[in-house]
Amino acid sequence: MTPRDYPTALGASSPTSITLLGHDLAADVMGEVGFGELAFWLATQRRPSRGEVRVFEAVLAALADHGFTPTAIVTRLTYLSAPDSVQGALAAGLLGGGSRFLGVTEDCGRFLAGVLKEHDPLPSDDAGWDALALETVTAWRESGRRVPGLGHHVHKDGDPRTPRLFEIAAEEGLYGPHLSLFAAVGRVHPRVLGRTLPLNGAGVCGAALADLGLPLELLRGFALLARTAGLIGQLAEELRHPVANDIFLSVDLNNRSVPPDPYGESHG
Amino acid sequence: MTPRDYPTALGASSPTSITLLGHDLAADVMGEVGFGELAFWLATQRRPSRGEVRVFEAVLAALADHGFTPTAIVTRLTYLSAPDSVQGALAAGLLGGGSRFLGVTEDCGRFLAGVLKEHDPLPSDDAGWDALALETVTAWRESGRRVPGLGHHVHKDGDPRTPRLFEIAAEEGLYGPHLSLFAAVGRVHPRVLGRTLPLNGAGVCGAALADLGLPLELLRGFALLARTAGLIGQLAEELRHPVANDIFLSVDLNNRSVPPDPYGESHG
Amino acid sequence: MTPRDYPTALGASSPTSITLLGHDLAADVMGEVGFGELAFWLATQRRPSRGEVRVFEAVLAALADHGFTPTAIVTRLTYLSAPDSVQGALAAGLLGGGSRFLGVTEDCGRFLAGVLKEHDPLPSDDAGWDALALETVTAWRESGRRVPGLGHHVHKDGDPRTPRLFEIAAEEGLYGPHLSLFAAVGRVHPRVLGRTLPLNGAGVCGAALADLGLPLELLRGFALLARTAGLIGQLAEELRHPVANDIFLSVDLNNRSVPPDPYGESHG
Amino acid sequence: MTPRDYPTALGASSPTSITLLGHDLAADVMGEVGFGELAFWLATQRRPSRGEVRVFEAVLAALADHGFTPTAIVTRLTYLSAPDSVQGALAAGLLGGGSRFLGVTEDCGRFLAGVLKEHDPLPSDDAGWDALALETVTAWRESGRRVPGLGHHVHKDGDPRTPRLFEIAAEEGLYGPHLSLFAAVGRVHPRVLGRTLPLNGAGVCGAALADLGLPLELLRGFALLARTAGLIGQLAEELRHPVANDIFLSVDLNNRSVPPDPYGESHG
Repeated sequence: MTPRDYPTALGASSPTSITLLGHDLAADVMGEVGFGELAFWLATQRRPSRGEVRVFEAVLAALADHGFTPTAIVTRLTYLSAPDSVQGALAAGLLGGGSRFLGVTEDCGRFLAGVLKEHDPLPSDDAGWDALALETVTAWRESGRRVPGLGHHVHKDGDPRTPRLFEIAAEEGLYGPHLSLFAAVGRVHPRVLGRTLPLNGAGVCGAALADLGLPLELLRGFALLARTAGLIGQLAEELRHPVANDIFLSVDLNNRSVPPDPYGESHG
Repeated sequence: MTPRDYPTALGASSPTSITLLGHDLAADVMGEVGFGELAFWLATQRRPSRGEVRVFEAVLAALADHGFTPTAIVTRLTYLSAPDSVQGALAAGLLGGGSRFLGVTEDCGRFLAGVLKEHDPLPSDDAGWDALALETVTAWRESGRRVPGLGHHVHKDGDPRTPRLFEIAAEEGLYGPHLSLFAAVGRVHPRVLGRTLPLNGAGVCGAALADLGLPLELLRGFALLARTAGLIGQLAEELRHPVANDIFLSVDLNNRSVPPDPYGESHG
Repeated sequence: MTPRDYPTALGASSPTSITLLGHDLAADVMGEVGFGELAFWLATQRRPSRGEVRVFEAVLAALADHGFTPTAIVTRLTYLSAPDSVQGALAAGLLGGGSRFLGVTEDCGRFLAGVLKEHDPLPSDDAGWDALALETVTAWRESGRRVPGLGHHVHKDGDPRTPRLFEIAAEEGLYGPHLSLFAAVGRVHPRVLGRTLPLNGAGVCGAALADLGLPLELLRGFALLARTAGLIGQLAEELRHPVANDIFLSVDLNNRSVPPDPYGESHG
Repeated sequence: MTPRDYPTALGASSPTSITLLGHDLAADVMGEVGFGELAFWLATQRRPSRGEVRVFEAVLAALADHGFTPTAIVTRLTYLSAPDSVQGALAAGLLGGGSRFLGVTEDCGRFLAGVLKEHDPLPSDDAGWDALALETVTAWRESGRRVPGLGHHVHKDGDPRTPRLFEIAAEEGLYGPHLSLFAAVGRVHPRVLGRTLPLNGAGVCGAALADLGLPLELLRGFALLARTAGLIGQLAEELRHPVANDIFLSVDLNNRSVPPDPYGESHG
């Protein structure tokens, strides 16, 4: 087989230089580019504006740590069990970043983008957005689907991150169609669902990331990046004020042996 | 068993508020705190200065992406094989962040910190640092250990990241004892080893992180945080300009069947 | 909060004994129960018959190793990069066990079970199965879905595992409705699709596992169990006849730097 | 660069056949080779005897599941959080298979093999083994190292797995030098340590695997293979009798916010 080559615009090095995204890493990136900015740049291969960085970093802050989530508990327990491998403890925590706990960001971004793609031209005022939102929420309700980004098990009367992210995006001139539609969903859904649910923080983060033009397939990836910083914080705290062994024992010492409950007995 | 409680200074929420590190997340963190700053804060529970953030983010930039490393290839191949799970592709890549490819940062930071801990008072001038470095490199050489942070398979005449990080740390007044000792190792090792090796970028990053007062047990964790951003960049590029299937085929189509080579035949 | 308890029928221990699935581990399981048998038992909480074990182990053998798959390459590269963590190398490989490379087993089992659930009574002869298969394949074709378990990129004229697993299941009296429907799909699909595709090995494994009464949600899990044995084999071979560094270099040395290709330029 | 080839004795396929370890997969492996036997064969590239399979499977049974260990809790929590990815839940659980909870098997096998390598000829009777064990335990004690395989936090007066595995190995004529030395350690250590500790099950498993001639670098891998079956059992039970959400809530609802505890304040 002929050898192939593998094109990339990311990191490259020669004996005397290292480039990243076409720039000299040492001279032009190190000391010049913030980490949020760099993460955005790596994902899009274009350097974001200051305003884009601010919105992006606000999203990362919103998603970095939510206390003793399953992902945080998993990272602490894995470190307890295998302290020789920090990479394993972080990876194990990230593996919980799936559909239920971190997936709302991506689901919401995709949901909004899907609706927008079908509507051209887009609404030009709040009344127009409300009409589109009403149509959308009604259609989702009728087909039995849950609208992503609505509801929160703790912040029942409003997630404090949501108005703040709307505000930051507006300040930076980055309040685009995804946020507009999401806000309209927040206004109109009580008329369809018969009760008022909060727009949750994970959802508004998805809307904001989509308005930043980030790839929809990777919205979950940004939530995972934020969470990596949070999990390092969890590990740092665990190292100094450990709780993982207590968590383990609180489960193990409360186990209760029950007889097997055979599955599929009728088969075979 | 009495229920325990689990203290934490990280994320916490009530129905109406979310706090992170004792601050109101929405009001005081989102839109106000950069992502590198937040990651530092989460890991140390103290807010870093602007200078500390600049050095920290320079380190993250230095470590974010090095092109087609094993970790990058692994993330792309895992995504090829399981595109339903972005978290799995990122976690798989991070699992390569062990002793060989990402571990130098931690090894070097620990090495320097270990030497410093044994020497009180610390040297006050370059001659003093050189003497300490000479003693250290000699001792390591005699016991057959490799000095971490020395040598690079590509940048044989100098890793461009190294002088740049020394410079940035000096600009910010954060050129502390770990960097001082590391620089001295760079000056004196040819006298002991009989050849001149470059101080590599991963090593200087470890020295700089240690001078920032970050926990030594987690230096690898910061390399992994940087790499998470890089791996998202790799995935984003893979989505648009895929190479993973070509990589897979370049291996699979060049496999060569050989007869089994029994191991441990003499046993049992 | 009141302490909860956590019921389980799996492993439990007291100072003087260990039980597993209600049996004395040392006396009744060790030395008495094969590993395939135990895996089945753990998953279903019922002890399988000898015939069930034979079919189950035939499936595991069929799925254990397929040479240089992405999962095998990933495990080898991760071990190259982080040789300190065998668990990381195995976990990284398993993370490729998703929808594309290992998922067919589960998809096919679920597909067949879904059809069977809708049809009561089930057919009693081949003509009846053919009619059901014809109706099913036609419906899937019309709704644009691919029928799971059909087609193979290498074994275009027939996957040798398929007839063998039908045979073993028949020998053990475990050729049930899932295998019957799958065989019928193999017979009738050319009439609908206009070409003849092989019934692939991953698909027939899913049908056989479903006929064994194993939980559909975990069919992928059994493929992963089989693959764990295969990945240990890959690591064992890598330790003695390493190829991972050559694979890495074949990619890295053939990288080609290209300019960034900005994404989402029009946004923001 | 010239294309390389990648030799392997594991799985290979042509359009009409699949071979595994040089045998026809469909004809000679499926239905003929048990799963424990296959795992051994894949790891060593030699087919084990019936006795070797029995000892090997007894080890796997001993290590498969120990109830609510950190690895089991992690797998259940990860599945709760990301139910879309069974592979992620299993991989997360395996990542806890490091030095503390699953590593004893490997540590003990390596320890015994290291001692044996230094002693030629090996003892020929119990008195000789006792002398070697006495010398070894004394030396380890003096250098402040813990002897692997001694002690258990629950089975303080004896781990029931240990005598059983000795017995099975003896029945199969596979009671070799590693088991002999381990048994002698059990007899003599009270004279050195001043108290009697049990030989634990993880340790005797390492000794038995080493006597089977399996590669020492992968002893942890076999523990992980056993545990994969156990974790599938945990997931299967979780699907039908879920406890992960209760575990999560028992931690989250008992969190206690404390003020940040700044680390490294004196630095920088």
